[in-house]
Amino acid sequence: MTVVERLIHHFSRLPGIGRKSASRIVYYLLKADRRSCEDLSRDILELKNRIEPCRICGNYTDSQPCAICSDSGRDRRILCVVEEAKDILSIEAIQDYRGLYHVLQGVISPLDGVGPEDLRIPSMLSRIGDEGIEEVILAMNPTVEGDTTALYLVDLLRKKAGVRITRLALGLPAGGDLEYADRLTLSRAFRGRGPV
Amino acid sequence: MTVVERLIHHFSRLPGIGRKSASRIVYYLLKADRRSCEDLSRDILELKNRIEPCRICGNYTDSQPCAICSDSGRDRRILCVVEEAKDILSIEAIQDYRGLYHVLQGVISPLDGVGPEDLRIPSMLSRIGDEGIEEVILAMNPTVEGDTTALYLVDLLRKKAGVRITRLALGLPAGGDLEYADRLTLSRAFRGRGPV
Repeated sequence: MTVVERLIHHFSRLPGIGRKSASRIVYYLLKADRRSCEDLSRDILELKNRIEPCRICGNYTDSQPCAICSDSGRDRRILCVVEEAKDILSIEAIQDYRGLYHVLQGVISPLDGVGPEDLRIPSMLSRIGDEGIEEVILAMNPTVEGDTTALYLVDLLRKKAGVRITRLALGLPAGGDLEYADRLTLSRAFRGRGPV
Repeated sequence: MTVVERLIHHFSRLPGIGRKSASRIVYYLLKADRRSCEDLSRDILELKNRIEPCRICGNYTDSQPCAICSDSGRDRRILCVVEEAKDILSIEAIQDYRGLYHVLQGVISPLDGVGPEDLRIPSMLSRIGDEGIEEVILAMNPTVEGDTTALYLVDLLRKKAGVRITRLALGLPAGGDLEYADRLTLSRAFRGRGPV
């Protein structure tokens, strides 16, 4: 196997990249300037060498604790609990939320053999106790596994006095169309309707 | 900019990868085992260090001449002329063609400032003279630029006695539907119809 074939094989294993896209990428790299290929190659190594989960929140970071956990400008009374570290990227992109995060590193999914004991729940509970958290936002995905995990956490958190528990709103996506909304989404949008 | 952000930026510049796909890939790599990331990183460097165009046909290769040019089992009387080295990959994938190749490294495209003098045409002509080629298959893409280039080459090649010049057939794609074929394709399919 030549390095071209090997690289096409490597790229085609990345998420969202099939064999055709992989070969387009490799032929693009063959034509690209040496510098940008060296940067790409070096940064892939650096990613594995320098990036680790933050020991407090579980976000990927190159410093301990991560930039968000050590940012004194953030609201330390609100904790947003997410499934995966990548969800933090999506939420940070909206530039609306200024609280802290906690990454569960998964969801409860009996079919995949993932139970509550596999998630970062104990560290979440101790943070809520120790850090004076006033609101916990459960930002799991609106899927069966996400809902199950949220329900499980609600059960645990109800025992903590003085902590408000919220979940992200369910409803029509912005720019969406009633005609194309599935029944469950539409019914949630009705149930969650609010005053204008 | 952290290495995560830098890498998302690098990946989003590759063809067919947007910002969302790029961040999915980076978070996939963060979870992937170290070994496969090291392989990917090393092979990207090797690609730039070891792969060069074959000095005969122009295909990308790690040995001179390339595996196809030096394969004694191939039919040395047929030369398939393609726009780019990546086209060789597509043709080799069908495992039907057993002749040689010649890469033009582009097409005539006045809008992009590419003229015949920018293409590997002189080396093609001398190969046809020296190597005893009996058939030249013009395998340019069926686009305006590909057609222009093919016409230009036909003009040059007509002067060579005893060389058969052919082009790839135009017609309906396999699994296609008359209803969805564009008019040009359908009209070419009619003109190119053959006995059953």
